[in-house]
Amino acid sequence: MSVTDELLANNAEYAANFTGPLPLPPAKHVAVLACMDARLNVYGVLGLAEGEAHVIRNAGGVVTEDEIRSLAISQRLLGTEEIILIHHTDCGMLTFTDEDFRNSIQREVGVKPGWASEAFTDLDEDVRQSLARIRTSPFIPRKESVRGFVFDVATGKLSEVF
Amino acid sequence: MSVTDELLANNAEYAANFTGPLPLPPAKHVAVLACMDARLNVYGVLGLAEGEAHVIRNAGGVVTEDEIRSLAISQRLLGTEEIILIHHTDCGMLTFTDEDFRNSIQREVGVKPGWASEAFTDLDEDVRQSLARIRTSPFIPRKESVRGFVFDVATGKLSEVF
Repeated sequence: MSVTDELLANNAEYAANFTGPLPLPPAKHVAVLACMDARLNVYGVLGLAEGEAHVIRNAGGVVTEDEIRSLAISQRLLGTEEIILIHHTDCGMLTFTDEDFRNSIQREVGVKPGWASEAFTDLDEDVRQSLARIRTSPFIPRKESVRGFVFDVATGKLSEVF
Repeated sequence: MSVTDELLANNAEYAANFTGPLPLPPAKHVAVLACMDARLNVYGVLGLAEGEAHVIRNAGGVVTEDEIRSLAISQRLLGTEEIILIHHTDCGMLTFTDEDFRNSIQREVGVKPGWASEAFTDLDEDVRQSLARIRTSPFIPRKESVRGFVFDVATGKLSEVF
């Protein structure tokens, strides 16, 4: 039995107790952008329930063109007004360099990716970089509440980055 | 009090009952790629707990360059082996066209985005498109278990797309 099949069996239990549908626009008018890290359960960490917030995630919780696309759709079409950015301690993105990662792919498959890995060396500095990419984007209309945090994987706590 | 402050207060409760840290690599060796939709709580839907799976999300649950980046990092550096893709019924991405969205931004801010919105008209077809983008990428090494599903926001159930 694959892990996918095991998780599908869990879905049957979830559906048995499910009450829907909820409205499409997020009830709390907030979008969360976080790292994909397995230890960062955004629903638990922020006490979110179904229907309350958009959740955007990727390796590092960084802001590239695709996150600007998602945030633009979130604010312009679905009415979100606040953005919460979450990086975390012990992040995999701190463990390699962009050059090493792209070179290893080139050695193995013969093609070097046209994209950067977005690896970083300083957690707080990368939160600030992500905040700056949002604040300087012309495609995100509401920037009154764009705040960045580091989640501590040892304590479960969020600390704001200024 | 902003919604962000309200969610930060929830975090204090979460941290009070938190036991960590868990290991960095996902215990179930799986990466989930899903839409950012507020009604799609990936942890609930799949019965996932902290530490088990990478979770990647964006508007539509589509596959662009940034999702290939995240999946490449997930498989190459953190050992995941299976990929679960989730779109859902009543998706916002079915409610507009790429051209209208980009034109409306141009009218409002004077600049047309260089990126496509990734809006789609057929849910199952877009799941297949996303699966194909993963299967044809040279940067994703493990493709034995790449499966796509539609989450029904009315029933809570996942249906596989073939």
